[in-house]
Amino acid sequence: MSQRKDGTDSGKIGERFDSAVLEDTLAEIEPASLQMREEATGYIRTLTMPDWALGRLLDLAVDLAGMTRSLRFPVANKEVLLLAGDHGIVAEGVCPQSSEITAQMVRNFVSGGAGINALAAVAHAKVTVVDMGVAADLHDLAFPGKIVDCKIAPGTKNFAKGPAMSRAEAIRALEIGIALVEQRAATTDVFGTGEMGIGNTSPSSAIVTVLSGASDPSAYVGRGAGLPTERLKHKAEVIRKAIELNHPDRTDALDVLAKIGGFEIGGIAGVILGAARHHKPVVVDGFISSAGALIAGALSPASRDYMILAHGSAEPGHAMMAQLLNKQPLLNLGMCLGEGTGAALAMPLLDAAASVMTGMATFTSAKVSDKGIRR
Amino acid sequence: MSQRKDGTDSGKIGERFDSAVLEDTLAEIEPASLQMREEATGYIRTLTMPDWALGRLLDLAVDLAGMTRSLRFPVANKEVLLLAGDHGIVAEGVCPQSSEITAQMVRNFVSGGAGINALAAVAHAKVTVVDMGVAADLHDLAFPGKIVDCKIAPGTKNFAKGPAMSRAEAIRALEIGIALVEQRAATTDVFGTGEMGIGNTSPSSAIVTVLSGASDPSAYVGRGAGLPTERLKHKAEVIRKAIELNHPDRTDALDVLAKIGGFEIGGIAGVILGAARHHKPVVVDGFISSAGALIAGALSPASRDYMILAHGSAEPGHAMMAQLLNKQPLLNLGMCLGEGTGAALAMPLLDAAASVMTGMATFTSAKVSDKGIRR
Repeated sequence: MSQRKDGTDSGKIGERFDSAVLEDTLAEIEPASLQMREEATGYIRTLTMPDWALGRLLDLAVDLAGMTRSLRFPVANKEVLLLAGDHGIVAEGVCPQSSEITAQMVRNFVSGGAGINALAAVAHAKVTVVDMGVAADLHDLAFPGKIVDCKIAPGTKNFAKGPAMSRAEAIRALEIGIALVEQRAATTDVFGTGEMGIGNTSPSSAIVTVLSGASDPSAYVGRGAGLPTERLKHKAEVIRKAIELNHPDRTDALDVLAKIGGFEIGGIAGVILGAARHHKPVVVDGFISSAGALIAGALSPASRDYMILAHGSAEPGHAMMAQLLNKQPLLNLGMCLGEGTGAALAMPLLDAAASVMTGMATFTSAKVSDKGIRR
Repeated sequence: MSQRKDGTDSGKIGERFDSAVLEDTLAEIEPASLQMREEATGYIRTLTMPDWALGRLLDLAVDLAGMTRSLRFPVANKEVLLLAGDHGIVAEGVCPQSSEITAQMVRNFVSGGAGINALAAVAHAKVTVVDMGVAADLHDLAFPGKIVDCKIAPGTKNFAKGPAMSRAEAIRALEIGIALVEQRAATTDVFGTGEMGIGNTSPSSAIVTVLSGASDPSAYVGRGAGLPTERLKHKAEVIRKAIELNHPDRTDALDVLAKIGGFEIGGIAGVILGAARHHKPVVVDGFISSAGALIAGALSPASRDYMILAHGSAEPGHAMMAQLLNKQPLLNLGMCLGEGTGAALAMPLLDAAASVMTGMATFTSAKVSDKGIRR
């Protein structure tokens, strides 16, 4: 297998796994159906509008047909999987907030008061909060089922001092994401990714730096949840040194995830792989979710066919992520909240794409002349 | 009153009207409330998210608060006013379709098979089709109330030979738009503009050329509903000569509308003026709707405060329109269908902005620390 743009030689990855679920999932992921893409394209050209006049909305319809193997793809049942985790790297002063806010925000999600709750309501999407590794006791939420308890550890280790997690933990994070989708695949049409984790822009910046082959993370480091501009240089330097210390193997996505990643980032990668296995679209939120998407895409290039980039994040590293994924975000509204807010905001576009495919008349059925319009 | 960017000296316009409805409307339009904008901005800063982390969605919320004078602005009742009209300029070979398609598409709208029907369904927006000047007998639709019959004439005159319409007809088009809103203002929260009219990219290109002060329309002429690229030069030349022949006074928007406009374009301008008078947001669709918005903005600079540009059209002249209106479109999906499809597609963003204002918790109410987050 040839070397890919992101430096991952996907042919070798499988050999290193000690995990059957992950191996099986990767083995079962198929590319989107080219035949259904062509059928969708042909069908769209019969609909009562000038050729491709709905632009990228029609590209999205073709993508969805290819993923789902259907011209009348279902989109009604939507779910945002909001994965939370903490990060040892905050000890390095890379963000102005303390890790306590992660748990506080988890409680806010459960109470319905966060941005994702407001936007998921508009999209008619369910929000499921998953503890992947929050550094706080959340048993009172897990017990009555208000969150899903998949805590791997109370936060990653500080990757400025050594690996963020073990390879086994990285596999576990991926397999949790896969399992979350397995449990829901029969009843969910569209998945969305979301995350919460104070400090998680740092591993995301580290991942895009390594997978893009850059040596200096400066161009991919941003203010996250409000780091003062004068601290950006410090954050970039912490990340640069941490990469140097861990020297992750960019041809081995599991090594990258383990050494400089996060539990929720691994979980998001797993959600994407699981969705891809089930031919389900997954709306990838912003900067941190796209770091998960980079890991998923490196483990399974075919999984990219099932990713929809919701929006271009205001974080400066996101543009390179989109480039590495070879995807154009649907929205560009200067957002950088995370939680899955961008995914929720983009979901009505999937409804719109579906409605075009099911609701529009053809030139023939509507008795509209296609002279000068149809190709 | 000082000369504006678009060349309109708004202080003199009123004197020339022979129409009370239009004069009254223009006199009653107030700018958006600066105080409510400031209140909205302050309130948003108390909500549980990093500062302005939802970017332009929050700008939209501030805009809507300023228009409606409310932090909890209503957005539930939406209506797209889809204005149809024909154009004498098609005789010049500026588009590959014949005018018959306008009426065929009106029937398609009524039957629910067009793009706007598919997208308005997703936005939960009502679609009302108005005959502003279709060159066909549509009485069978008007009689049972399937369309609103406001036909001014069966199409404009060919503005390559003389003015598209009389000044009285231009006023009538504006007043119809105003009246359509008057009838609905009590029950509609958000208006959207839409249009159908074979040939209507030509008057739109002519309007942006004149109001931008350009002498050559080439940069603002596009393929419309599929004009072959090799015919673009011809289309631009027809428009250039037509402007030369009519020499519309760019400081007099009524003169511009009458000489080189269209009935549905005037109607759209009227809808915008009516919405502005009632402090209602109006989601302006694409290229042709923005031509109407330019006319409205020239007649009443304050009316711009109520315009929301739905999307950046694939028509090349649209970027200059957005610049003249000093607005950034919400979506950029390479669309160019018209009908109000872009307006419908953007409407869920208004729901999202409203949901943020009504649904999110504050740092205090959610007991989330704002340390390092709030300004």
